Amino acid sequence: MHNTIFAFKEGTPKYKQIYDQFKLFIERGDIPANDPLPSIRQLADSLQVSRNTTLNAYEQLVAEGYIRGEGRKGYFVNELEPLLLQNTSLPPNKKKSASDSQIIIDFRPGAVDQPHFPLQIWRRIANQVLTLQESFRYGNPFGEECLREQIAAYLLQSRGLKADPSAIIIGSSTQQMLIYLGQILKEEFPSIIVENPGYDGAKEAFQFHRFMLETLPVYETGTDFSTLEQMVSRLIYVTPSHQSPIGVSMSIQERHMLIHWANNIQGYIIEDDYDSEFRYTQQPFPALASIDSTRVIYLGNFSKSFLPGIRLSYMVLPQPLLNQYKKQFLHFESTTSLLSQLTMAKFMEEGEWNRHIKRMRLVYKRKMQCIVSELRKKFQQTISIIGEQSGLYILAKIHLNRSEEWLIERAALHGVKVYPTSIYFIKNHFDEPTIKLGFSNLTCEEIQLGVELLKKAWSQ
Amino acid sequence: MHNTIFAFKEGTPKYKQIYDQFKLFIERGDIPANDPLPSIRQLADSLQVSRNTTLNAYEQLVAEGYIRGEGRKGYFVNELEPLLLQNTSLPPNKKKSASDSQIIIDFRPGAVDQPHFPLQIWRRIANQVLTLQESFRYGNPFGEECLREQIAAYLLQSRGLKADPSAIIIGSSTQQMLIYLGQILKEEFPSIIVENPGYDGAKEAFQFHRFMLETLPVYETGTDFSTLEQMVSRLIYVTPSHQSPIGVSMSIQERHMLIHWANNIQGYIIEDDYDSEFRYTQQPFPALASIDSTRVIYLGNFSKSFLPGIRLSYMVLPQPLLNQYKKQFLHFESTTSLLSQLTMAKFMEEGEWNRHIKRMRLVYKRKMQCIVSELRKKFQQTISIIGEQSGLYILAKIHLNRSEEWLIERAALHGVKVYPTSIYFIKNHFDEPTIKLGFSNLTCEEIQLGVELLKKAWSQ
Repeated sequence: MHNTIFAFKEGTPKYKQIYDQFKLFIERGDIPANDPLPSIRQLADSLQVSRNTTLNAYEQLVAEGYIRGEGRKGYFVNELEPLLLQNTSLPPNKKKSASDSQIIIDFRPGAVDQPHFPLQIWRRIANQVLTLQESFRYGNPFGEECLREQIAAYLLQSRGLKADPSAIIIGSSTQQMLIYLGQILKEEFPSIIVENPGYDGAKEAFQFHRFMLETLPVYETGTDFSTLEQMVSRLIYVTPSHQSPIGVSMSIQERHMLIHWANNIQGYIIEDDYDSEFRYTQQPFPALASIDSTRVIYLGNFSKSFLPGIRLSYMVLPQPLLNQYKKQFLHFESTTSLLSQLTMAKFMEEGEWNRHIKRMRLVYKRKMQCIVSELRKKFQQTISIIGEQSGLYILAKIHLNRSEEWLIERAALHGVKVYPTSIYFIKNHFDEPTIKLGFSNLTCEEIQLGVELLKKAWSQ
Repeated sequence: MHNTIFAFKEGTPKYKQIYDQFKLFIERGDIPANDPLPSIRQLADSLQVSRNTTLNAYEQLVAEGYIRGEGRKGYFVNELEPLLLQNTSLPPNKKKSASDSQIIIDFRPGAVDQPHFPLQIWRRIANQVLTLQESFRYGNPFGEECLREQIAAYLLQSRGLKADPSAIIIGSSTQQMLIYLGQILKEEFPSIIVENPGYDGAKEAFQFHRFMLETLPVYETGTDFSTLEQMVSRLIYVTPSHQSPIGVSMSIQERHMLIHWANNIQGYIIEDDYDSEFRYTQQPFPALASIDSTRVIYLGNFSKSFLPGIRLSYMVLPQPLLNQYKKQFLHFESTTSLLSQLTMAKFMEEGEWNRHIKRMRLVYKRKMQCIVSELRKKFQQTISIIGEQSGLYILAKIHLNRSEEWLIERAALHGVKVYPTSIYFIKNHFDEPTIKLGFSNLTCEEIQLGVELLKKAWSQ
């Protein structure tokens, strides 16, 4: 048998080929259990390889349990259960689907501007970080100290929020942090109030933990807090700086009222401050957490303001929750890149973060003006624009007596991808179909082209 | 005393400055052992800082053993042994934080070798990736297609596992993936079997979802599967290639038996293949999932084999679970860096990954030989070494009639940090105290010095 089977191939070690062949024989039952195998010397001679080669092959088979050595008696085949065969074949490489290839302009909310990204500076710092000894270990499970200190300084200066660096937890995304946070909240708080319409990603994270959801209605004129007193929940998730998706901001009276409510019932407010950096008509409002940080869980991230793919988020926890959180997750590893954390800390420390935010506020303000004026020019009275004071998208309410679905499909047929808002509602909906248009990574020319194509798509 | 000493500096957290000052007082004997410290409130008032700040400082001191809390009586200074290491200098280019300052050699498992990291190549690719348009968006929630294709090719070539790229999910860490995966498993599977001793991080992740745990005993001779038939769970978490922490590998008979078990009861095996790249005496064993992927959830990661701080992990899901997973997490964003994913995909595509693994296997093999021979030389019959065939750590069973705690503390006093194994047990324990020694980021000289210091520390 052994003389004929082996035509050794190039590129694979010989011992591996011998091992593979014997494994196959044994698995197929070609060599029955408890049969002896040729000795190492015999096999080496018959295959014209070194004894080391056959020894290596046999040792691998012994280690994996296919055969056993019985001292001087030699090697024997072990019993095997009948093999469970599979015939999984790999599919050919997937190409992009046809429906994607025709898209010329994508108004996707959530991508960021590429031309103004501080590429050289970020690279320089990232390259430095890779030479540090501390980059070659697991990081702090709650985030690197140096980044937490920078975030604390930034929150104080930009959001009026005094946060002890040790109360800051760094994670990979708002959703990931809400899932971890939900674990310590769900015992005491079986239900939570969410805005309607509101950020679907947060709702998904709360549903992960089976929180009951109560809904707080939000209109273009603001949030209707009158229903708050009748609700049973002692936990609320809000977006006070820039309501997602409607774009309104809470007044200071509403903020005080909400803080008062939370104090009264000993509850917590989860403040998602996801894109507060980009307010065009005034300075960014101070965070809700700056009024009373004992009742507010503050969430921030670098996705909109820097780069979504970096996956860096953070939250500031009130002391009792912080203690619980640190106890619960003491033995967990960090959820986000140590390298990105160290790079971002240095980027902030060097003042580049503040420069970046300042620059991007102007860039996005120009793009916002561009999309608003284009839409007004092309559509005039047939659309209403919602949320042009801040953020990286607008809503356009379309008075054309068409469904949201129709509007999105027609746009796609003309090479434009636009986004629904119905997904943000748990109940009710806008009185007329309303489309979400992100503009952050489009040029003004692309925005113009996109609006022009939309005009064509919807004109019939 | 406290009014005068603190002129807080800029740039260092206050709690840290308080901590540093008290540590110094205690180390110098300025505050004698068993003297009471001011209460948290008193100290906060006199220093005009928040109670959180003083609490944090005290908690750090408690954690490091400088002081102890005695409930309502307050905090007291602990006895300290005279410093043994004042005249030992740190090896060059190691700057460590104050709390670690006495540790000369840290046998921490989980850090990686820095000198052989492919710095130039990784930088070049990472820098390229930053110029791509696709880097400026949110990524695919389940991981980038290009990386999944590379991982599929690697798994086939190196682990014998045929995985469809679309069945691969990319996440940030094993724990994060187990938390997400647990969400879809917990409905059908209220309990899970874990190895005892076993990876504590996995247990934590299962406890996150309140899985009931059943334990499968593992000994130095292997896993005792005889109890499997009496268990009620239909889900099992195992580390077949390199049992964590004991280091044994499952034989092919055990693998077949386990697959057979899972098929019989329609259950699943979670195979955590966390460091299978580093087997020194034979080739890495094929994955359990290569025998029957319909009943195996395969987990892999880049922490040991590349860089723990990069936070890149992946799992391969059987079809029914994949469908459930994709449905559950459709609206979730990716949990790990898009940039790292794109860089790793290119790194693998260029063949650098295979080169890296080959190189590191030799590097770590040399280190393993070094630590084993040093331990044998210095300790001879007083220790037994467990798990020298593979992985980035060994276990050393110490026959000195001392407790694990004593061994760790004495080592620390001599400037060596070593790690317990008792934390891996849910019930029972090793018959004698057993210490975990990681060596991956130590040089042979550092390993020698570390073992020498251990010999001194434990010689009495």
